[in-house]
Amino acid sequence: MQFTADIIARHLGGEVEGQGDATVFTFAKIEEAKPGAITFLANPKYTHHIYTTEASVVLVRRDFQAEHPVKATLIRVDDPYTALAALLQLAQSAIRPNPVGIEEGSRVCPGAEVGENVYIGSFAYVADGARIGKNVKIYPQCYVGAGAEIGDDTILYPGVKVYHGCRIGKRCILHSGAVIGADGFGFAPDAQGVYHKIEQIGIVEIDDDVEIGANTTVDRSTMGRTHIGRGVKLDNLIQIAHNVEVGHDTVMASQAGVAGSTKIGANCMVGGQVGIAGHITIGDRVQFAAQTGVPKGLPDDSRVMGSPAMPIGDYARMVVAQKKLVALMARVDKLEHLLKDKN
Amino acid sequence: MQFTADIIARHLGGEVEGQGDATVFTFAKIEEAKPGAITFLANPKYTHHIYTTEASVVLVRRDFQAEHPVKATLIRVDDPYTALAALLQLAQSAIRPNPVGIEEGSRVCPGAEVGENVYIGSFAYVADGARIGKNVKIYPQCYVGAGAEIGDDTILYPGVKVYHGCRIGKRCILHSGAVIGADGFGFAPDAQGVYHKIEQIGIVEIDDDVEIGANTTVDRSTMGRTHIGRGVKLDNLIQIAHNVEVGHDTVMASQAGVAGSTKIGANCMVGGQVGIAGHITIGDRVQFAAQTGVPKGLPDDSRVMGSPAMPIGDYARMVVAQKKLVALMARVDKLEHLLKDKN
Amino acid sequence: MQFTADIIARHLGGEVEGQGDATVFTFAKIEEAKPGAITFLANPKYTHHIYTTEASVVLVRRDFQAEHPVKATLIRVDDPYTALAALLQLAQSAIRPNPVGIEEGSRVCPGAEVGENVYIGSFAYVADGARIGKNVKIYPQCYVGAGAEIGDDTILYPGVKVYHGCRIGKRCILHSGAVIGADGFGFAPDAQGVYHKIEQIGIVEIDDDVEIGANTTVDRSTMGRTHIGRGVKLDNLIQIAHNVEVGHDTVMASQAGVAGSTKIGANCMVGGQVGIAGHITIGDRVQFAAQTGVPKGLPDDSRVMGSPAMPIGDYARMVVAQKKLVALMARVDKLEHLLKDKN
Repeated sequence: MQFTADIIARHLGGEVEGQGDATVFTFAKIEEAKPGAITFLANPKYTHHIYTTEASVVLVRRDFQAEHPVKATLIRVDDPYTALAALLQLAQSAIRPNPVGIEEGSRVCPGAEVGENVYIGSFAYVADGARIGKNVKIYPQCYVGAGAEIGDDTILYPGVKVYHGCRIGKRCILHSGAVIGADGFGFAPDAQGVYHKIEQIGIVEIDDDVEIGANTTVDRSTMGRTHIGRGVKLDNLIQIAHNVEVGHDTVMASQAGVAGSTKIGANCMVGGQVGIAGHITIGDRVQFAAQTGVPKGLPDDSRVMGSPAMPIGDYARMVVAQKKLVALMARVDKLEHLLKDKN
Repeated sequence: MQFTADIIARHLGGEVEGQGDATVFTFAKIEEAKPGAITFLANPKYTHHIYTTEASVVLVRRDFQAEHPVKATLIRVDDPYTALAALLQLAQSAIRPNPVGIEEGSRVCPGAEVGENVYIGSFAYVADGARIGKNVKIYPQCYVGAGAEIGDDTILYPGVKVYHGCRIGKRCILHSGAVIGADGFGFAPDAQGVYHKIEQIGIVEIDDDVEIGANTTVDRSTMGRTHIGRGVKLDNLIQIAHNVEVGHDTVMASQAGVAGSTKIGANCMVGGQVGIAGHITIGDRVQFAAQTGVPKGLPDDSRVMGSPAMPIGDYARMVVAQKKLVALMARVDKLEHLLKDKN
Repeated sequence: MQFTADIIARHLGGEVEGQGDATVFTFAKIEEAKPGAITFLANPKYTHHIYTTEASVVLVRRDFQAEHPVKATLIRVDDPYTALAALLQLAQSAIRPNPVGIEEGSRVCPGAEVGENVYIGSFAYVADGARIGKNVKIYPQCYVGAGAEIGDDTILYPGVKVYHGCRIGKRCILHSGAVIGADGFGFAPDAQGVYHKIEQIGIVEIDDDVEIGANTTVDRSTMGRTHIGRGVKLDNLIQIAHNVEVGHDTVMASQAGVAGSTKIGANCMVGGQVGIAGHITIGDRVQFAAQTGVPKGLPDDSRVMGSPAMPIGDYARMVVAQKKLVALMARVDKLEHLLKDKN
């Protein structure tokens, strides 16, 4: 497939500056692009690359003003990143494999319900009483347990495991190795220190439009449900413990972990490797910098950093002070000597 | 299934206060319960919910004294949480799928030994020389390598991988995505900085009554064994490196990691995201707060926090002092000025 | 299999001291060895064990001087650890299962190309257009997506998932649960805070001689490639985000994470649980202590520790000072009182 600058501009509602018949067949980062590639300039930090890029076409803001000659053909748009996203979506729909049908070597148990137009790959297992919506894609080696539900248009990439009774919404994407509904970590010690299992009879419920990263785990609740709200995006290798609730449109970066029974609000942003303690309540729109450790609940709109978490400004000042700590020790030593001398 | 308060009380050795014929068919948290649910009150923090809960039945301590009218029927027991655990176990045995038999589409190699009354799901692979005890459940897509052993009554949930030669005890539960016996991370650099693999010819040995969380990894040893003691409970996404030994009845929360050749004692409690360095020895009954970083060995009964780890009281005091650090800088500035003025 | 000290010494170019006909059939750590075992002494910390070990044979440095009688037969070599590695390799080639052929119950789609002498286990799936080199081993339950490439002599252990279009080099080892090429974590929020997916149309490219640990995830790029250089060794449960580049011969310990678009140089050493921010550049030969948090780029040969990362010496001094912080507060209190008294 290849497209001209003119055709792309028309698709995006953009304006061509340069050769309208410049053709592109691939995408590239501005600093790595070769002839035949389309790229974009959104972050001002990268502006200098536009004068040297070999890209054939560059998406730029409508108000971009070149300070040197630019070889590439420009397409001026309102928001180059959004425009790029639209083109990537177009490209993806053309190149991504789009399997349909129930492949030989898969197992759909007799009591399962399967909607129309689904893909169930070889070596996938759909247990009794499971319900699979329409247009769902279940790639090879996935497991959908007894009575579990998968909503319309959802994709389970190879090897996703959904335990019995859990419910996944519509238009969700679960990446390989995600485990939904393993037992919550619940044990009661006896007088000898031997742990006895607390059975976890609840489920996981995931609302619509959620994406779950590779090898992320969401545990089933002790009773009731562990709940992931609409539009939540979880990166890879995240832990969501039993009974947790995550509000809609919250995003979490890789390797974050949320301990049991904690409630996280809507529209939060959780950085990589953040740890959030159990049995606390986090408000809406809270932002956590990477590696933050959160022992206590936080009100709406908090922005925190550090372990234990503190307001991001306080943290920044503390870090500056910490760097001066060795010198401070010396200064206090000196003050003590001075005062001693005086006495 | 539904039960009356009288029947439940008789099962638990409890005492009914209210309507003995109140019926319940589900479990719920006290603050979310609807009519028809049984719940419990163990944590005093939640006491106020008992006056508003819609639960039909609440398990309470024998000495619980209501300060306001309570609508729900109460069942008085010695320990409400233990009583709940007993009921959950009963419910679980009724609702959990209990598959038996060797499903079509599984592969049990001719040289494998399989005990009686096992379940081996479709697309599970049991290699030559593997030995599977009686009543074992091997869910779909699991892999049991050549010569590996799985003890009686153990459950491998879908997609567990046990490499060749590893041994799992009796009554263990391994959750989806757990990987037992991948190669330890052993490489020797040459003069050019190129790493050469140190072959890992040891095994993993897991004793009886161990539970291993989803996507947790336990590496095989260089030689000898990596050893997980009886009754250990590991949460999800934990890393246990090669040659590690974990003593009996130790519990670890999610995303903790233990580096190579470290010995951890019995009855330890390891918080989430804790990192423990390699080649050190940790005593018995040591407790690690979440996100602790442990560079050195620790004696029995230590309680540590922070990175690097320090006694939990010292850590608490240091955190308080750190919050005052910016102010302290200003105070020292002022002292210096004062002294200067005096000279 | 068993071997005499004489035969082993000849294989290693070593020199026997003691009984040349001492036979061994297993490996063991020096402190755990029984008769019939060979062990080694490389770390001086373990020297005292040589006087009590029950091992039949011990590999020691050529210049080792016993200070007490040693019962075991010694083999003197230039480097005992390297000698051990050579013996382990020999043993591994003898004991490791070496399956070959395409097993029944695997699925190789008609459009896939498969080299000679491969192993493709049951329930493995090789999609259309995939290319599998010669001598490759694809264990059961692996997935190789459409158009993906696996280089000669590479091993995919059970359950590895390689998404469509990704390329793995020669002589690589990927452990169970590794996920290569899941979508990068790219979303753009709209004015209502709803996140829209940025399609990830790039690939992952892994060069020759790379080892990837169990349950490690390497995401596909937005466009172009996520790139892992030759000889890189990644431990278990590591996250490599989209568009990241890792230079040749860099090693990372378990649970480390690298955020999107970051470039890491060659010959770096990344400790366990390290977090590296996105969009930064790390030089060559940089060393990161465990749990380091890295917000900014670093030049060649940096050695850093702490969160936020600082030079390892500064960190050590800061930690010492932190431990004195509570006392420092008291000292400043006292100075203030003294000065007040003076005024």
